[in-house]
Amino acid sequence: MTQTYRRLRVAPSDEGVLSVVIDAPPLNLIGPELVRDLVTLLGELEADQDTRVMVLESADPEYFVAHVDLTKVAEYTAEAAKAGGPEDASLGMLWHQLSDLPVVTIAKLRGRARGAGSELALACDMRFAARENAVLGQPEVGFGAPPGAGGVQHLARLLGRGRALEVILGAGDVDAELAERYGWVNRALADAELDGFVARLARRIASFPAEAVRSTKQVLNGLTLPGADAVRADARRFQQLVGSEAVKARAARLFAQGLQTRGPLEHDLGDRLGSL
Amino acid sequence: MTQTYRRLRVAPSDEGVLSVVIDAPPLNLIGPELVRDLVTLLGELEADQDTRVMVLESADPEYFVAHVDLTKVAEYTAEAAKAGGPEDASLGMLWHQLSDLPVVTIAKLRGRARGAGSELALACDMRFAARENAVLGQPEVGFGAPPGAGGVQHLARLLGRGRALEVILGAGDVDAELAERYGWVNRALADAELDGFVARLARRIASFPAEAVRSTKQVLNGLTLPGADAVRADARRFQQLVGSEAVKARAARLFAQGLQTRGPLEHDLGDRLGSL
Amino acid sequence: MTQTYRRLRVAPSDEGVLSVVIDAPPLNLIGPELVRDLVTLLGELEADQDTRVMVLESADPEYFVAHVDLTKVAEYTAEAAKAGGPEDASLGMLWHQLSDLPVVTIAKLRGRARGAGSELALACDMRFAARENAVLGQPEVGFGAPPGAGGVQHLARLLGRGRALEVILGAGDVDAELAERYGWVNRALADAELDGFVARLARRIASFPAEAVRSTKQVLNGLTLPGADAVRADARRFQQLVGSEAVKARAARLFAQGLQTRGPLEHDLGDRLGSL
Repeated sequence: MTQTYRRLRVAPSDEGVLSVVIDAPPLNLIGPELVRDLVTLLGELEADQDTRVMVLESADPEYFVAHVDLTKVAEYTAEAAKAGGPEDASLGMLWHQLSDLPVVTIAKLRGRARGAGSELALACDMRFAARENAVLGQPEVGFGAPPGAGGVQHLARLLGRGRALEVILGAGDVDAELAERYGWVNRALADAELDGFVARLARRIASFPAEAVRSTKQVLNGLTLPGADAVRADARRFQQLVGSEAVKARAARLFAQGLQTRGPLEHDLGDRLGSL
Repeated sequence: MTQTYRRLRVAPSDEGVLSVVIDAPPLNLIGPELVRDLVTLLGELEADQDTRVMVLESADPEYFVAHVDLTKVAEYTAEAAKAGGPEDASLGMLWHQLSDLPVVTIAKLRGRARGAGSELALACDMRFAARENAVLGQPEVGFGAPPGAGGVQHLARLLGRGRALEVILGAGDVDAELAERYGWVNRALADAELDGFVARLARRIASFPAEAVRSTKQVLNGLTLPGADAVRADARRFQQLVGSEAVKARAARLFAQGLQTRGPLEHDLGDRLGSL
Repeated sequence: MTQTYRRLRVAPSDEGVLSVVIDAPPLNLIGPELVRDLVTLLGELEADQDTRVMVLESADPEYFVAHVDLTKVAEYTAEAAKAGGPEDASLGMLWHQLSDLPVVTIAKLRGRARGAGSELALACDMRFAARENAVLGQPEVGFGAPPGAGGVQHLARLLGRGRALEVILGAGDVDAELAERYGWVNRALADAELDGFVARLARRIASFPAEAVRSTKQVLNGLTLPGADAVRADARRFQQLVGSEAVKARAARLFAQGLQTRGPLEHDLGDRLGSL
């Protein structure tokens, strides 16, 4: 890991475990710099022989990832395109590449993970959330677009028809305890125990014979990952609707109320979408 | 909504939310009149531009829907046939049409929802149950027939192999708390909070841009709904076995004990099937 | 049931319910004798008209099944081959035949069910576990091989992507309460209530009309069972990797610490794999 990152903190791999910390103030919005870093990271991980497990977390205890930067959709999509061909110019396909890595990936969730931030966590192999403060949400439908980066695919499989329809069409905030009950995260753990739990699990998997881990993940991917065509279709639907008049009008009202700044609107985004 | 209903109470749509109350005393049995009303309702909803969300509940706090009227299988099937072609003459295909509506549907469950009543709730997009009194069950195998209106398909997907086999082959009653743990309902909520919770969720979804809700539901339907062929095959199996000598004999003993009347047999139908 | 069994205790069928008790001291390891008995049992059950439900449990309260006997992989595989053709020479295909039986099968779990023992329980139609003492695990990846007898297939479907990756790549022990939350077992029940609960459910299903139970199980199998090709592919992968140098080296260290003997290593196998 020689590359310098601007929005990620990437420590040298320790006993096969790589720590990656998202550090993109003020809200870990997904914009072009963060996407460029993630594209670089994926390229390095594909070539890296030493890293067996990656743990992904946030430097900001209140926001894992707020959501995409709505003022820079074209710019971050252009960065995402550098990881694949032109038809893969989407966060959905970038997250899909993450899921496909031979490296095992674990998301450690504190604070809010909404929209493409929830979808980034869903693209990881496992998700563990701090019971006291983690919040997940797919607010897209409340703006006027479907989730576009794999969330529809993953939540349909993990939560089943009724609960996936509730959380995606309802577009509300889901706390860690309900996220565990619904299967959005593997488990909700006490914040004070979360780091130790994830570190032990990561070191443990990194200590197992590499070929068994890799081939078993590959079989499980074949059984559980959405196909690339479905991910591309969802990305196209998002990209069409995110430019619609309905989304522009609703986003304008939310920007006037503080969207993409640290404050009550972003804190309670799930609730606030219901009273626009 | 100009149509007069006989077994449904349908209020005018309010801010995009339509309230539909099943009112078919004494037990909300599914018979020809109720099916005729449901066929009418589906036709109106397909043409209705104002209704975005439908909330379905029961006027009877003890019975959401007891089950089909076993004395009128031919009659209600003939009514169901009016919604589709002759090969779609089944409750299963009528419930399937309900799932396919662009309108979002929410079942609010109090009391017993057994057999085709459970399957009606499963055909809705989401299900919320009163923790204190909701009971779900698929008693069909205890009579001698498989569930015929989509329950096998939905429960296999929602509950997974082991739990679907348990509740369908076991044919027992499942209370709201276990139904939540198994994924049969989205959540069990305190009876006193159920109405407010569902009303807020319904209004919320109805306030979101219509195109996003509709297209997202369509994608989720593609991922999670059973195919029409599987539903038709289940309906055929039910229609074959429901006329068998085994079912006739067991139903005769249950009618002698009070089946289809308000009383202890219907109240405890799940238990009673185990000691026929 | 006229056959004499050496590692199973098989009582005469009582009101359609057959009790089968695994009794292969010291740890209910899966070796050639136990597999021979299971092949015999499956053959008898296919011909048996009286048995409607089979309940499978262990005579050893601490071990349902520890795992396969790693010193006798070739021998038990040769026995398993007697149940099918040469391409079906695997525990995975034997367990798959068990799932395909028209008889309904219920696993009653006390103590440890690891590796192919967990997969034997997963091949049964339903699983109920003693809350105080049941432990499930797929330790294979910690040895250096993927689970080979259907566990990958079943757990992917029952637990979903994130949790299946966690328990299979993590290779740790899962207690009854977490196994219930994850869907690995139908329910965790108090040890003192487990026998009564399972006996009532078994008698109940055995009392229902046979044709309805059989045809409904067949439809649910079609919806939820992995295909034979996937099971065969998993078995091949296991058979390739179980003979690798990595597995031999790790197994040798574990044998030196007490593997396959009654003692602390087997008791805490999940934990111990993490500090090899």
